[in-house]
Amino acid sequence: MKQFRLLATVSALSAGVGVLAGVNYDSIRRIKKDQLENESRNYKYYIPLPTVSAAAPANVDLPTISNTVSPIPVTPSNRVSEIMKYGFPSLDQIRSYDNFVLSYDRRNRTAHWVFEHIKPEHILGKNDTDRENSIFQEDYSIHPYFRATNYDYKSSGYDRGHLAAAANHRHSQHAMDQTFTLSNISPQVGRGFNRDAWNSLEKYVRGIARMNKNVYVCTGPLYLPRREADGRLYIKYPVIGPNNVAVPTHFFKVIAVENVHGDFELMSFVMPNEVIPDSVPIKNFLVPIETIERAGGILLFDKIPKKRFSVINGKRV
Amino acid sequence: MKQFRLLATVSALSAGVGVLAGVNYDSIRRIKKDQLENESRNYKYYIPLPTVSAAAPANVDLPTISNTVSPIPVTPSNRVSEIMKYGFPSLDQIRSYDNFVLSYDRRNRTAHWVFEHIKPEHILGKNDTDRENSIFQEDYSIHPYFRATNYDYKSSGYDRGHLAAAANHRHSQHAMDQTFTLSNISPQVGRGFNRDAWNSLEKYVRGIARMNKNVYVCTGPLYLPRREADGRLYIKYPVIGPNNVAVPTHFFKVIAVENVHGDFELMSFVMPNEVIPDSVPIKNFLVPIETIERAGGILLFDKIPKKRFSVINGKRV
Repeated sequence: MKQFRLLATVSALSAGVGVLAGVNYDSIRRIKKDQLENESRNYKYYIPLPTVSAAAPANVDLPTISNTVSPIPVTPSNRVSEIMKYGFPSLDQIRSYDNFVLSYDRRNRTAHWVFEHIKPEHILGKNDTDRENSIFQEDYSIHPYFRATNYDYKSSGYDRGHLAAAANHRHSQHAMDQTFTLSNISPQVGRGFNRDAWNSLEKYVRGIARMNKNVYVCTGPLYLPRREADGRLYIKYPVIGPNNVAVPTHFFKVIAVENVHGDFELMSFVMPNEVIPDSVPIKNFLVPIETIERAGGILLFDKIPKKRFSVINGKRV
Repeated sequence: MKQFRLLATVSALSAGVGVLAGVNYDSIRRIKKDQLENESRNYKYYIPLPTVSAAAPANVDLPTISNTVSPIPVTPSNRVSEIMKYGFPSLDQIRSYDNFVLSYDRRNRTAHWVFEHIKPEHILGKNDTDRENSIFQEDYSIHPYFRATNYDYKSSGYDRGHLAAAANHRHSQHAMDQTFTLSNISPQVGRGFNRDAWNSLEKYVRGIARMNKNVYVCTGPLYLPRREADGRLYIKYPVIGPNNVAVPTHFFKVIAVENVHGDFELMSFVMPNEVIPDSVPIKNFLVPIETIERAGGILLFDKIPKKRFSVINGKRV
């Protein structure tokens, strides 16, 4: 029942540093660092602590977007600016598809993050859109040294798990096909995770998207450190296939919901890449967004003024 | 004597895939993949295998360079285009200093790679340049979430090891000071590595630079997978300090020497971040450049036409 220890961490830290979710530098200074460190030291996954610093964050400007060279053609569109309206989490190896944008991690052979902008019309579905028509394929825009292949996943024991969920792109068979590009795929535990808890989280997000005008979703892998018997923290994860595709220890999903008043609600989840019992409620995986930003080396929704988040992880702020 | 197994790998692979060093796609196809796999399977560190693919490498264009905002001011100069003349290994989080350029890995809190262009006048030294005048300090251009601090290294048991070596920048106290910025530093085993084998490699490079017009050096960390008792490959490395600074398993150093005829000689080294006996000669750490490119998620000197490399890892090609 290893995952319950993570949940305990998450709960403890949510209580302690929930105020950090808005990435407010003033509030960071108010956190009692030693207290937090003591709270988190005994848990399975060590959550990086806030540093006490008054320095301003570096500016992150919009990058040049490179088109994907792929056997699934990318329709020229202005969706990139819509999808990425509230900031790029990082600027490395950006690839834009018809209805999602990602940053590729050439060392780990999977994405750093994948960004979606979901409106109700994207997920209502059409009769002729079916994931059975889609096939997993290599991303030919990635240099062969760094490209994941179907052969890497074969006999690995892991599912080819979607980061941008296929069903979020039901409005177009072509857009759905693109979600099967292996740059949008990570090795996920199948039964108990990809087909169960993670799938439930994806459905939960679609439920929110059906009821709101604009939902922005950022999804990606994490490689979280764990304290071992020698008392030291280690990052450890398997790699699969001839190309050494990384098997992330965790996955994150961060959702910014824009309501009719222009206010934002933020939800940020981290799930371990392991069997999770159906009985565990999704809210148990809520974490402060800062936890994901620090561990992932990314900044999320940094173009949204913090005062516009009226609800964070289910709590009015 | 763990490192001797790596050396065996390096030797076996150098013999087998030395021809790959020039990143020639035709030659990749000639490698007998199964044979290589069998050779490398039993060694401590698994060297990623070449994939058999005819696809062309992706174009890597020059990025926009962001100036470093640092208490050590960066002198405006055109050195970036000189240092990076033969291509950026990757384009993430580029920082340019007076005499070196690096890409910062925000997840691991150290560089992806550091690039230097060394001419004899850079290392001849001046009487008033002394590393005793330099102090290690944070890189204030990095967001505090991702920034390594001196506190991270304190009591970690690791040295603050230079990637761009301080003594390569003896021509200017200011340039030397900048090499003490923590973005140019990685946790290195002190005695037996940073102060010994790695230092010897740095001196070897300076010896070459003294005798040649232009020497380009790319240095960085690696996180190499290792096969464990369960038969699977894992990437595993410690992290230190409150900011979880990664301790790389290995470091690479790749040197392109431009001789008076405009020909290039290439040398590429990988050393394990552990105690290495003084008796091990530097040439034992030579590896095919492709090994470093695949493991690091980078492309090295990709703007140099392959036919211009007349000597690779000491062998005329």
